[in-house]
Amino acid sequence: MTGARRLPGSHLALGPGAEFDRIRNIIDVLGPQAVGLGDDCGLVEQEDGFLALSTDVSVEGVHFRLDWITSEEAGWRATAAALSDLAADGADPVGVLCAVTMPRTSPESQLLEVTAGVRTAAAAVGAQVLGGDLSSGPVLSIAVTVVGHTPRPIIRSGAEAGDGLWVTGTLGDARAALHAWLTGRQPAARARRKFAHPEPRIAAGIWLARHGATAMIDLSDGLAGDARHLAAASRLAMTIDLDLVPLGRDVRDEALTLGVPEAQFAAEGGEDYELLVSLPESFAAADAFARDCGIPLTRIGEAAPGSGVEFVSAGLPIELRGFSHFG
Amino acid sequence: MTGARRLPGSHLALGPGAEFDRIRNIIDVLGPQAVGLGDDCGLVEQEDGFLALSTDVSVEGVHFRLDWITSEEAGWRATAAALSDLAADGADPVGVLCAVTMPRTSPESQLLEVTAGVRTAAAAVGAQVLGGDLSSGPVLSIAVTVVGHTPRPIIRSGAEAGDGLWVTGTLGDARAALHAWLTGRQPAARARRKFAHPEPRIAAGIWLARHGATAMIDLSDGLAGDARHLAAASRLAMTIDLDLVPLGRDVRDEALTLGVPEAQFAAEGGEDYELLVSLPESFAAADAFARDCGIPLTRIGEAAPGSGVEFVSAGLPIELRGFSHFG
Repeated sequence: MTGARRLPGSHLALGPGAEFDRIRNIIDVLGPQAVGLGDDCGLVEQEDGFLALSTDVSVEGVHFRLDWITSEEAGWRATAAALSDLAADGADPVGVLCAVTMPRTSPESQLLEVTAGVRTAAAAVGAQVLGGDLSSGPVLSIAVTVVGHTPRPIIRSGAEAGDGLWVTGTLGDARAALHAWLTGRQPAARARRKFAHPEPRIAAGIWLARHGATAMIDLSDGLAGDARHLAAASRLAMTIDLDLVPLGRDVRDEALTLGVPEAQFAAEGGEDYELLVSLPESFAAADAFARDCGIPLTRIGEAAPGSGVEFVSAGLPIELRGFSHFG
Repeated sequence: MTGARRLPGSHLALGPGAEFDRIRNIIDVLGPQAVGLGDDCGLVEQEDGFLALSTDVSVEGVHFRLDWITSEEAGWRATAAALSDLAADGADPVGVLCAVTMPRTSPESQLLEVTAGVRTAAAAVGAQVLGGDLSSGPVLSIAVTVVGHTPRPIIRSGAEAGDGLWVTGTLGDARAALHAWLTGRQPAARARRKFAHPEPRIAAGIWLARHGATAMIDLSDGLAGDARHLAAASRLAMTIDLDLVPLGRDVRDEALTLGVPEAQFAAEGGEDYELLVSLPESFAAADAFARDCGIPLTRIGEAAPGSGVEFVSAGLPIELRGFSHFG
């Protein structure tokens, strides 16, 4: 191992917003001690590539409620959210570590359910459980750290003017589930599954890294917020056509109840854990991607010189809001 | 990198106790997905040695109170506690990742103080901050994951019959501070510092690994509990002479207020973050250790065929209790 390495442009350039002002202030405090903050993973250079590491905490009442999903799903979901950062770097998972807090009065069966969720999410991508910690605490919280390996990390800052912008899978189902719960209804089964059991796009991330991806980010804060991070990190302007965004099957009905256009509903929703990726203009292998990875890859926009992200629908600009957790 | 590796005997053998029954049940659920659980670190074999990883969560009201220590000290302490697991494996730290929850109403300055504590603890041992996450949550909690590297990890199961048992530094000061606070007094300055600002014994761990350490564990659960883990993992009996245990300067006064013999007070207290290490009978370099590492190394017992740990004082066996957090 040859030590942690700061890749050029791999941090400091975040999109606008109060949450990201906070992160900018943290990076200021950390100074030269920080490596890769503001990207999906921290990177440590090795003989044969890079270790990629990321940590992600899921908190009851903020990221999920236990009357919505089971404890096992909470364990899966927290682990999948962290693994999604490895996917965004094109990294292959090696291991996960998990620190759990829960009330002293929680039954041991609940802890074992959380553990089972962590285990199955790790096993699904070939990662081992390398460590854990347990403490009492006022609510269930699950902090998952993931470590993976990649010969060539795909960071946020590598997009070039002229690149196309593509998205994996479909968007908006996690928000559709959340919106149903928050308005006192049960979500449709598919939307519920996307929220409770997201699949980290590990195979897709590795495929895209091998097929020329120039920059990549996972959609945890929603397309509206995460596209701004990609544009800011790459110091480019990006235009995204909302009419091209691939939508989950249950998005239309939930968007209707809220009176919001369905693509806007999807782009403003978080936690889809799909990938937003820039690829050279010449990229033409979306069909091969779909065949190899089992999910669609859809072109939704392009990068150009300049700054900021413009979302358009029917040729007109649309103002989008970023996603905040409900808690 | 050649993948995660289970070292022989590196898990499953834990000391007795309800908390460890829980961990045994977790390991059962994890099955073949678990590597190294029950040891200080999870290990991943590489070309030039092993990655060592560990995660540790510190929760307000369980591990610390913010009327006892500052937010910066809470950040240092949480990071030092996780780094202490690397010390116990003889590993050299590479990086730390940190997931923080705090109430929405907390001032941003508090988050920056926590971050400063994490940064200085990482910088003190040459580690970089590789990642972080932030969420709202009912209390301040700090989940720190550490990654390090070692050519030869020292695990808990390597002790041999005839080995001497040694301890670094002095014990009992963290409990002395805790006991003062819990009984409504301010702790003495030295005891307070050991609680608020523990020094992970990284240099000591590396020194001991290079000088023949056969097994090692950090004293987070207290000598009474952690010696039992070492004995169980190594499938040996251990005898520890409490009259030989090196005591912190403020232990005597606090032990007196509780009416407990001072060595018992120290051995039943947790979170000293010193190292308990087994060394071959022939080891005679404690003076060199003290010169190189700046802290004492004291022989307190030995390992023999059999099982369990016997604590003695004035030649008589003493029953000790394990340490539990106050919250």
